[in-house]
Amino acid sequence: MREDIEQRLSEIRFGPDGLVPAIAQQHDTGEVLMLAWMNREAVRTSLAEGRACYWSRSRARLWRKGETSGQVQILRELRLDCDGDALLLLVDQEGVACHTGRRSCFFRAWREDGWQTLGAPQISPEELYSKSGG
Amino acid sequence: MREDIEQRLSEIRFGPDGLVPAIAQQHDTGEVLMLAWMNREAVRTSLAEGRACYWSRSRARLWRKGETSGQVQILRELRLDCDGDALLLLVDQEGVACHTGRRSCFFRAWREDGWQTLGAPQISPEELYSKSGG
Repeated sequence: MREDIEQRLSEIRFGPDGLVPAIAQQHDTGEVLMLAWMNREAVRTSLAEGRACYWSRSRARLWRKGETSGQVQILRELRLDCDGDALLLLVDQEGVACHTGRRSCFFRAWREDGWQTLGAPQISPEELYSKSGG
Repeated sequence: MREDIEQRLSEIRFGPDGLVPAIAQQHDTGEVLMLAWMNREAVRTSLAEGRACYWSRSRARLWRKGETSGQVQILRELRLDCDGDALLLLVDQEGVACHTGRRSCFFRAWREDGWQTLGAPQISPEELYSKSGG
């Protein structure tokens, strides 16, 4: 069984750095929440635990989404694209996805006069990261 | 004006290879169609022409989506994420996004017994790429 999983994971074409981009989308509304990165271990962990786990490039370690903020992403479905080098996670986002306190990380829109910020934070970053004691 | 655009483009944090991942999402249904890559010139061209233009990593050149298949993506809105290193394109997809003839490139879903293919092609790849004479 374990072997089977490993074989299926082999269909994912991780890049030279061992990573693939992973899109998180709210499963029912279709909102694109964020883009993060996954290595093989992150995919394996996400499937095993049923919640999104990424590879944090800045911290160079596995990052269980919501581990400090409590804003976890329950994994509803994992999809792979035609080329096998990008993942789409259909998730149920607890609270907000963005560290700024917004639901989605994609809150800046290109306008004639520059990048326009869409929507205010639903929660302050201070509150977001004090919840679980850091 | 040109200078302004260049300054705004500077808020996009392209990677060491000059690229950022770009998600294409159907603007009205919310369907995630594909993930591709953009360099600065691709972003500039997309904005100037009002249709999605990517950087093809395999062909190492600008790639106007639909240039051979006719399946263009009209750009409705360009969004940037909180970290500035990922783009979301809200598009109006003409026909299908995937070279397999499917609407979305994310047509493989993880199941207990392996990757399951969702949905049949709407058009055959042969027909898709013979339309405009290659």
